[in-house]
Amino acid sequence: MRERGLIQVYTGNGKGKSTAAIGQAVRAAGHGHKVGFISFFKDPDVFGYGEYRSMEQLGITIFLFARKHPHFYRELDPEEVCEECCRGLDFIRELLLDLSWDMLVLDELNIALRDGFLKEDEVISLLDAKPQKLELVLTGRGVPQRIVDKADLVSEVMEIKHPYSQGIQSREGIEY
Amino acid sequence: MRERGLIQVYTGNGKGKSTAAIGQAVRAAGHGHKVGFISFFKDPDVFGYGEYRSMEQLGITIFLFARKHPHFYRELDPEEVCEECCRGLDFIRELLLDLSWDMLVLDELNIALRDGFLKEDEVISLLDAKPQKLELVLTGRGVPQRIVDKADLVSEVMEIKHPYSQGIQSREGIEY
Repeated sequence: MRERGLIQVYTGNGKGKSTAAIGQAVRAAGHGHKVGFISFFKDPDVFGYGEYRSMEQLGITIFLFARKHPHFYRELDPEEVCEECCRGLDFIRELLLDLSWDMLVLDELNIALRDGFLKEDEVISLLDAKPQKLELVLTGRGVPQRIVDKADLVSEVMEIKHPYSQGIQSREGIEY
Repeated sequence: MRERGLIQVYTGNGKGKSTAAIGQAVRAAGHGHKVGFISFFKDPDVFGYGEYRSMEQLGITIFLFARKHPHFYRELDPEEVCEECCRGLDFIRELLLDLSWDMLVLDELNIALRDGFLKEDEVISLLDAKPQKLELVLTGRGVPQRIVDKADLVSEVMEIKHPYSQGIQSREGIEY
């Protein structure tokens, strides 16, 4: 068993951030580690995200908060999204008290931060509450510098070329 | 079912390239797609790579070529490594003739290229032989410009911060 879990961040404007976090979760699960995958702004009822099906099959526990982002759903009340993100953060805080978790992925948490649905101070104090052995993986573009400073590993995924610019839409089995 | 599969490349010096490819494979498998994961320079007998266990559980087929890289095994005969990489390429060429595959990941193929174990022309002609519906995912740092030109999606994973620089070694469930 590992001595110390780290804080990993996948940020940047390119494709591969959540995808790498899925890879991390799957790798850890392959060693029998207990993994939770907490996503913000992902709605499996809209996209049939294949990754959640696969991860559940591997015993990874999925938690979803604030499934819809106001950028795509203009009718949403930002106040409500804010509350849902806070509920998500409270929930993660609870998870940190359960020392049986080996890895928690906080997927798109950076987006919740960037868009003002969560406060930087709250997330920083969450990171401070990380149990020693737990590996925390944060994803999403626009990570604040204070989180970079706290993290042990930060990868920036840069878009060099993206098929959207060729007019190719989001595809089943690839983007979701 | 998708109309056209693309060529994706994950390159750069940061952590998250093979990890993103694992995520891609897992996502596709979650939709019942037929996925093959072909790795170069990965030896599960040395590291008990958790990802291979998980991917096999999801019905993803794993193929391994040139498991050891001369950089880490000085006693290896580069000629032999070269032959093994060519065998790998021949094998992938055969796989392309089997139209039932939805996705093939060519993990660390870029390294085989970068280190001169494979010829650029051969890989380019492999990409040209991609069946229409197949999604091809290449990983590894140092991808040549001609492959970038051929690809539809290229993400460069940049190292912003890496725990190795803090003296933290490769960890089970995280790096393998």
